[in-house]
Amino acid sequence: MPPVSRFLPCLSWLKVYRRDDFPADLLASIIVTIMLIPQSLAYAMLAGLPPQVGLYASVLPLVGYALFGSSRTLAVGPVAVVSLMTAAAVSQVAVPGSPDYLAAAVALAFLSGLFLVLIGIARLGFLANLLSHPVINGFIGASAIVIAASQLKHILGIDADGHSLLALGRSLAGQVTAAHLPTLIIGTASIVFLFWVRKQLKPRLITAGMNARLADVLVKAGPVAAVIVATAAVGLFALAADGVRIVGDIPQGLPPLTLPPVDAPLWADLLPAAILISVVGFVESVSVAQSLAAKRRQSIDPNQELVGLGAANIASGVSGGYPVTGGFARSVVNFDAGARTPLAGVLTAGMIALTAVFLTPLFFHLPNAVLAATIIVAVLSLVDLGAMKRTWDYSKSDFAAMAATILLVLTAGVEAGIIAGMIVSIALYLWRTSRPHMAVVGQVAGTEHFRNVDRHAVVESPTVLTIRVDESLYFANTRYLEDAIGRQVAARPEIRHVVLMCPAVNFIDASALESLEMIADRLKAAGTTLHLSEIKGPVMDRLKRSPFFDHVDGEVFLTQHDAMAALDPETTAQADAGQRPKTPAAARARPEAAE
Amino acid sequence: MPPVSRFLPCLSWLKVYRRDDFPADLLASIIVTIMLIPQSLAYAMLAGLPPQVGLYASVLPLVGYALFGSSRTLAVGPVAVVSLMTAAAVSQVAVPGSPDYLAAAVALAFLSGLFLVLIGIARLGFLANLLSHPVINGFIGASAIVIAASQLKHILGIDADGHSLLALGRSLAGQVTAAHLPTLIIGTASIVFLFWVRKQLKPRLITAGMNARLADVLVKAGPVAAVIVATAAVGLFALAADGVRIVGDIPQGLPPLTLPPVDAPLWADLLPAAILISVVGFVESVSVAQSLAAKRRQSIDPNQELVGLGAANIASGVSGGYPVTGGFARSVVNFDAGARTPLAGVLTAGMIALTAVFLTPLFFHLPNAVLAATIIVAVLSLVDLGAMKRTWDYSKSDFAAMAATILLVLTAGVEAGIIAGMIVSIALYLWRTSRPHMAVVGQVAGTEHFRNVDRHAVVESPTVLTIRVDESLYFANTRYLEDAIGRQVAARPEIRHVVLMCPAVNFIDASALESLEMIADRLKAAGTTLHLSEIKGPVMDRLKRSPFFDHVDGEVFLTQHDAMAALDPETTAQADAGQRPKTPAAARARPEAAE
Repeated sequence: MPPVSRFLPCLSWLKVYRRDDFPADLLASIIVTIMLIPQSLAYAMLAGLPPQVGLYASVLPLVGYALFGSSRTLAVGPVAVVSLMTAAAVSQVAVPGSPDYLAAAVALAFLSGLFLVLIGIARLGFLANLLSHPVINGFIGASAIVIAASQLKHILGIDADGHSLLALGRSLAGQVTAAHLPTLIIGTASIVFLFWVRKQLKPRLITAGMNARLADVLVKAGPVAAVIVATAAVGLFALAADGVRIVGDIPQGLPPLTLPPVDAPLWADLLPAAILISVVGFVESVSVAQSLAAKRRQSIDPNQELVGLGAANIASGVSGGYPVTGGFARSVVNFDAGARTPLAGVLTAGMIALTAVFLTPLFFHLPNAVLAATIIVAVLSLVDLGAMKRTWDYSKSDFAAMAATILLVLTAGVEAGIIAGMIVSIALYLWRTSRPHMAVVGQVAGTEHFRNVDRHAVVESPTVLTIRVDESLYFANTRYLEDAIGRQVAARPEIRHVVLMCPAVNFIDASALESLEMIADRLKAAGTTLHLSEIKGPVMDRLKRSPFFDHVDGEVFLTQHDAMAALDPETTAQADAGQRPKTPAAARARPEAAE
Repeated sequence: MPPVSRFLPCLSWLKVYRRDDFPADLLASIIVTIMLIPQSLAYAMLAGLPPQVGLYASVLPLVGYALFGSSRTLAVGPVAVVSLMTAAAVSQVAVPGSPDYLAAAVALAFLSGLFLVLIGIARLGFLANLLSHPVINGFIGASAIVIAASQLKHILGIDADGHSLLALGRSLAGQVTAAHLPTLIIGTASIVFLFWVRKQLKPRLITAGMNARLADVLVKAGPVAAVIVATAAVGLFALAADGVRIVGDIPQGLPPLTLPPVDAPLWADLLPAAILISVVGFVESVSVAQSLAAKRRQSIDPNQELVGLGAANIASGVSGGYPVTGGFARSVVNFDAGARTPLAGVLTAGMIALTAVFLTPLFFHLPNAVLAATIIVAVLSLVDLGAMKRTWDYSKSDFAAMAATILLVLTAGVEAGIIAGMIVSIALYLWRTSRPHMAVVGQVAGTEHFRNVDRHAVVESPTVLTIRVDESLYFANTRYLEDAIGRQVAARPEIRHVVLMCPAVNFIDASALESLEMIADRLKAAGTTLHLSEIKGPVMDRLKRSPFFDHVDGEVFLTQHDAMAALDPETTAQADAGQRPKTPAAARARPEAAE
């Protein structure tokens, strides 16, 4: 890519923009706008912010992403999990509903944007990889439950708060008897309707002969229908006077562009949350972008995605919005509706801006309970018990990381949860690689293959011990290697040569190098020689640059068969000729190291 | 091992103790005692404690280790680095010289002992592996410099303090003009003498016909000679009256056995330091123990070592001592002097106890400057610039972890240094494995071998892309894999099959499994099929337990050659027949992924 379009990916699609791309982009943008309006209002409410803030976060951020993002079809804006994280972070530094609360949310978007742009420029996108899939799935599932629980107060028409399930439950339980009946009816009816649309409507439309794609788009418009009907009903029957809480007055227009004031103590308080929100938002967004790009054989540059999302958040921070990221459902709708370029996003932004300027009076009678219902129905689809079961079946350690995340999100809050998940998964990975799989191997009679003595009837030399290591050697597993070799050699005094077979050793770090030197020295002191076999090219290149071969008297053999032929020609000749050992190797005394 | 001797390893050597083992153990214990007395006094001074505390820490802890430790020849007691760490930790909770300071040091030993025993019983010894060798070397080297600097005040006869080099330097610089001349002469003379003993005496003795081992032992006794001469000189010339600071009155006897009072806030303050001291002490100690054990084909159980060192520290905590661990120099002396069993340690303990009871008046005129000189000369031998150079040459990332450790020890203190080193080395390891080595491979004409297309002239199929991955697949590198495959396939539209060749993939975690499913789905959407080849047995077993093969339409081939023969029989037949491609594979357009 030429330098300029590398930093401004929009140039690459603007240059080749064709007249017939426009109708496709326009249609997609209309559909996404219809979907995005109720979502923006609802997620702003979830974040504890006035509804118009959701609209503001759906204007300039979309333009920012269109200029700098690398996905052609990603649709950015407020999303559920990031809204919850915003609420959790901002309510720690300001009172919900206060001007400070709004200012902190705006500052959070700006900070998060700066952070994303910085790590994008520094090409540190790989940091996001530290979140494993089970941790993300557990985090999103548990967050969905906390989000749904946090919206129950709107369905019940009562006040309650708390950012963990425990706190919320306690708060709700205390007031459930004070539930407001008309609100409860509106909320429950909306939930039932939205679930029906999601589960039942699409198959019926298709049975009735409708095109599957169109049916899908209609289903996605369900929340809009609920909003229109409920707003009309509340308006017509003046239910607000009966105590049904409504959105009420929304200022018309867009806030002026302004840099958030530099408030060092506030920024310092918000920084950890900004980092977490950035990472979670990026991980969510980039996987959607990659899935969509792959379908059209396009590709995504993760570091450019960081810059794109960063630009979107900076745009949000200077235009009165709050943290945004790429949304899964809306991006799929955008893609399926035929969007070809990010111009669709710019068009969506324009329509949302028009909405904010002209249409907000229409939302006056919109009941909060309907917004809460759309949130509940949207997030509960994120709870994936099947994924938990699959993770449990596949890997207990992955499940442990997931369980720690879920448990902490539910009991201690979203931030504690995601951090715990990250620490547990890193710790378990280190633990796993710190106990590498090793096998004592012998020759398969009549071949030049070497296999685990515990699994196969192979020929083993009485004087040469060969250990195959199935892991790269690094600081966390060198002591394990020392122990294993030490135990084997201590148990078999007749051993004169130890061969370390390294076909799966992808690197040897400085600690492991010292360990190997130490092992060689110790073996030498006990009258035994250390050899290596089947070392990979790049690993060997490094070893040659080190004083390793000054310590090691033994040789490096290209193949394990070469090693055996040199160190125990007699046994090897027998094995080559296909003679099996008299006593099977597995019957001999051997310590437990040969796992 | 039978259950009882498993928890009390002393039973296994006591059972077979022979009469002629005793003279060997006794001789070794006498030599170690002579070496340990000045060290104990000096290291207690380094820890900011009264000199007798060093003696107390050299009595019961030795017995505790003899009962529970698994090394036959390790000699425990106060050591330099742990003494420095003790000073750093305890001076944060109490004023040096106060009774609280002593009480906190004793509590620290007790806590550290409890922690070591607990992780030993829980078999969590692998935690210590998170300290890489370069981090340990950097830590010890930098600590040695801080220790040496902290002793300069005793050589100069002035007051100064601080636990980082910066603080110390500032404190010393302010008072260097107030240096006390007689003290400076004693201190400098001792340093020169001790360096001379270390560097010159041994070769001269050997040239004069002395046995090398005996020469070694004599050299180790250098500090005792310095202590005796200096004490006699200060006593005879009454230099204490001139202002030379001396050890002075040391209470005769041993403190009564007593549990340290449970002081929850103090213990909570000390716990992080206790954990760090335990880990550092363990790492130091176990590597000495393993080296010595290997020389006699004995073996060490790291978890039992934790229990042994834990017992030693608990013993120190109930007998008025401070944290201890296995010392390098004294263990080597013990081994070389012929110690056969831990009884040598018990005998040493008895002799130190007798010293504490009867001989302390002899130390009255011992000048602090001589103790400081022994510390300085001992620790400066730990600064290993060669190791730094070797690490730099071998691996820049290992060097980065080492440099971070050194920098932080020197500027921010020992605890910050070791924690920074641990974080940097883990982060760099994750970074390294997050960018696995991958190669696009092709067939070596005339063979069934497959090699990197960028390094070898190989036959590549126009429709089948084979990527070999040289790393286990886990959460931190799955996105890299997705990117790499996505880029390759996007760049070569004629590709119909992608084969992932996995001979060095030792495990696939749940994140990587999902990624592979996602890659398969994306490839399918683009009209391409994902296949696997050369998967290891245990990895395949796991895959079979998952719904992976519901996603993947492709096949799993036992060998890469099978895969090519099935997916592109024509090209493979040509390659088998030894026909080289018309255009060399490397000449074709290919994105940068094939590193």
